[in-house]
Amino acid sequence: MTAPTRILLLAHGSSDPRWCQTFEALAAPTLRTLPEARVAYMELAEPSLEAEVEKAAAEGVTHIKVVPLFLAVGRHLRKDVPAMLEDYRERFHVEVELLPPIGEDPRLGEALKDIVSDTLKA
Amino acid sequence: MTAPTRILLLAHGSSDPRWCQTFEALAAPTLRTLPEARVAYMELAEPSLEAEVEKAAAEGVTHIKVVPLFLAVGRHLRKDVPAMLEDYRERFHVEVELLPPIGEDPRLGEALKDIVSDTLKA
Repeated sequence: MTAPTRILLLAHGSSDPRWCQTFEALAAPTLRTLPEARVAYMELAEPSLEAEVEKAAAEGVTHIKVVPLFLAVGRHLRKDVPAMLEDYRERFHVEVELLPPIGEDPRLGEALKDIVSDTLKA
Repeated sequence: MTAPTRILLLAHGSSDPRWCQTFEALAAPTLRTLPEARVAYMELAEPSLEAEVEKAAAEGVTHIKVVPLFLAVGRHLRKDVPAMLEDYRERFHVEVELLPPIGEDPRLGEALKDIVSDTLKA
């Protein structure tokens, strides 16, 4: 049975496979732990956000939470992604919620502090 | 006395002050903990990377570690930033080391897992 909620980890996407591999590695602990989670790309890489929303709706998911793998809100998260999601809500009849980018979560700042502290010890 | 090593937390920069505020918040725990750390911007915001490298050299810093506040390596970190740093090394006579972007550190993946797990509980 499919969970009623799906998490889409949204990365920008790139034609450079090394760029996408970094996001796949970043997402890996989440994907291992949460069966509701998938990676999706805004552009330039597959699977696309559109394809993942359509797939979720077809599988009976009623609520999608989009977690942007972005550090801050720029034009994409302020304009482009909300417009894409509005389109998908209408076309695929599913609730889609856009969450803040991960860079706004205090846990990222704490992780950064740990990374930099280790860098100084090295 | 100035520490011989400086850490520059390098963000891309934006003309949108809200974008820069997110990076300042992200950097805050590191800046509070490590007196060697500063934020610098690649473009479109102040202080610039160039200004911070010049300032460090003038203060007697001999070694600068640049920690990119980027999730992955794209064109900027592959080409533009290395070229900028090569220029600064020659002009300011200081050792400058470019570290991997924070998105490649496993601690970010663990933080993401915690963020997303909480999102599901909400």
